[in-house]
Amino acid sequence: MNLPPEFALIARHFRPLAGQGGLDLTDDAALLTPPPGRELVLAADAMVAGVHFLPDDPPQTIGRKLLRVNLSDLAAMGADPLAYLMTVALPRNTPDSWLEGFVAGLALDQAEFGLQVLGGDTVSTAGPVSLSLTILGTVAPGQALRRGGARPGDTLWVSGTIGDGYLGLRAARGDIADPDGYLATRYRLPTPRLALGRALRGLATACMDVSDGLVQDLGHLCRASGCAAVLEAGRVPLSPQARGADLAALLTGGDDYELLFALPPGAMPAPGMAITRIGHFTAGPAGVQVLDRTGQPMALSQQGWSHF
Amino acid sequence: MNLPPEFALIARHFRPLAGQGGLDLTDDAALLTPPPGRELVLAADAMVAGVHFLPDDPPQTIGRKLLRVNLSDLAAMGADPLAYLMTVALPRNTPDSWLEGFVAGLALDQAEFGLQVLGGDTVSTAGPVSLSLTILGTVAPGQALRRGGARPGDTLWVSGTIGDGYLGLRAARGDIADPDGYLATRYRLPTPRLALGRALRGLATACMDVSDGLVQDLGHLCRASGCAAVLEAGRVPLSPQARGADLAALLTGGDDYELLFALPPGAMPAPGMAITRIGHFTAGPAGVQVLDRTGQPMALSQQGWSHF
Repeated sequence: MNLPPEFALIARHFRPLAGQGGLDLTDDAALLTPPPGRELVLAADAMVAGVHFLPDDPPQTIGRKLLRVNLSDLAAMGADPLAYLMTVALPRNTPDSWLEGFVAGLALDQAEFGLQVLGGDTVSTAGPVSLSLTILGTVAPGQALRRGGARPGDTLWVSGTIGDGYLGLRAARGDIADPDGYLATRYRLPTPRLALGRALRGLATACMDVSDGLVQDLGHLCRASGCAAVLEAGRVPLSPQARGADLAALLTGGDDYELLFALPPGAMPAPGMAITRIGHFTAGPAGVQVLDRTGQPMALSQQGWSHF
Repeated sequence: MNLPPEFALIARHFRPLAGQGGLDLTDDAALLTPPPGRELVLAADAMVAGVHFLPDDPPQTIGRKLLRVNLSDLAAMGADPLAYLMTVALPRNTPDSWLEGFVAGLALDQAEFGLQVLGGDTVSTAGPVSLSLTILGTVAPGQALRRGGARPGDTLWVSGTIGDGYLGLRAARGDIADPDGYLATRYRLPTPRLALGRALRGLATACMDVSDGLVQDLGHLCRASGCAAVLEAGRVPLSPQARGADLAALLTGGDDYELLFALPPGAMPAPGMAITRIGHFTAGPAGVQVLDRTGQPMALSQQGWSHF
């Protein structure tokens, strides 16, 4: 018996990715024995061509970005990656070579992050490539990092460097120079800060990942925590490639996938993490005050990025 | 602080659906304590407007169909529903009233099936509405129904009636009459056979749900089980509304969401289930022989439906 196109495509491209629990993707659902004594941490993110990635991005990086965006959510919760399910809506004329690249990228990141694919669905669409991924992680009960625990007096920190993803989108579009390709890679292949998330368990009072603009996301954290934050723009870490760019744009552009977190006064995680203190929390209604390098309030035309 | 459109939309429409574990959809991920001593059962299905539902279907039924298609996968595994995550890609001009209807439908089915939403994502798309849902269920360890256990001599059964979904699509398109609306409702609101799935635990040797055409799906079951099946077309249960339609089309049309299963010779589930014996399994290479009402092999121009 020949397989119809949908099933042949799954058998050829996706079955080799599947683990034991995925039942070779031949059953209606997958089975998973939850690790005993752990809480599950679950998140789902979607990406659409032309909104979250460029239609002509290399297919190798598209699946990896989707995985990493979800892994960044696990990092923000201090969770360890476990498994994922993915659905893929593709135009009917999608070439086999695109799928080969897409799956090869996923295989790389499954190995890098110790993940297995449990299942999914492949369908056609008359529109752009539309991807959705649900990730499962685990954490010891009560150890998950949350957004709502920052308190006045806590210090405000961020990992890595800010604004590279925003500049990387512009570089990938050809709008700005990117001689070493660093910026476009930061846009196409964010690095989920899983080790930092683990190191912040039991230490950070609040944590989230920065995906839609530093200022806007800090606003979410303030709302969840019921306090205000002062962000010192001059302290925000920038890569050499981002220095000289418009600071307001870097603080409000999307696609950073760094961790933003609060620590109690005097607390510090173990050394060796690339983190920077960029401000502090104060009493008062939820809100973000951004100060420029001279300590003056900085006017921002927008706070961040909305995907809708 | 005002919320940007993406977050305002989530707060207004989706937060009221979220349960405790969803952390009000304000954290990066949800937390779930897995029920102790149970295996998790996970599936993900996608639906695209114009492929899996009609763009002008009532928004109330679209989310419910997506949930029920996934619940049907749990039923096929003999699992009990637990929770779900959903991502939604919508055109930017989607009216608020559409979202209100979509969410109202989900709320109905959450209550009906005892489900909570744990998280998700809402994004824009330049293409058609594109939905993805990951469902979580549970089952006692080792009790999940699988596709691969049918043996020569087992009897072949199906639940409910076959072909209504296929005719319902044609009715919803206005291609055929549907005076009482029964057929279109069968297309738009399939009924996941969860009680039957539970009753088949420890009894059925193989089980799956029929979503892409009875003959094609039976072929999948045969391949997984490594045996052949004889399907007696004259025994296939039809609704009064489907009688008189082309039998070959009913046997190969999609959207049935009934359970197809194998029982050992002589076995019967508890009475009260709407099930019909429609054939049996034989030794030999995986394949399906369809016999017409006179016992002669029936020629079919296609086996079923591919969504790609």
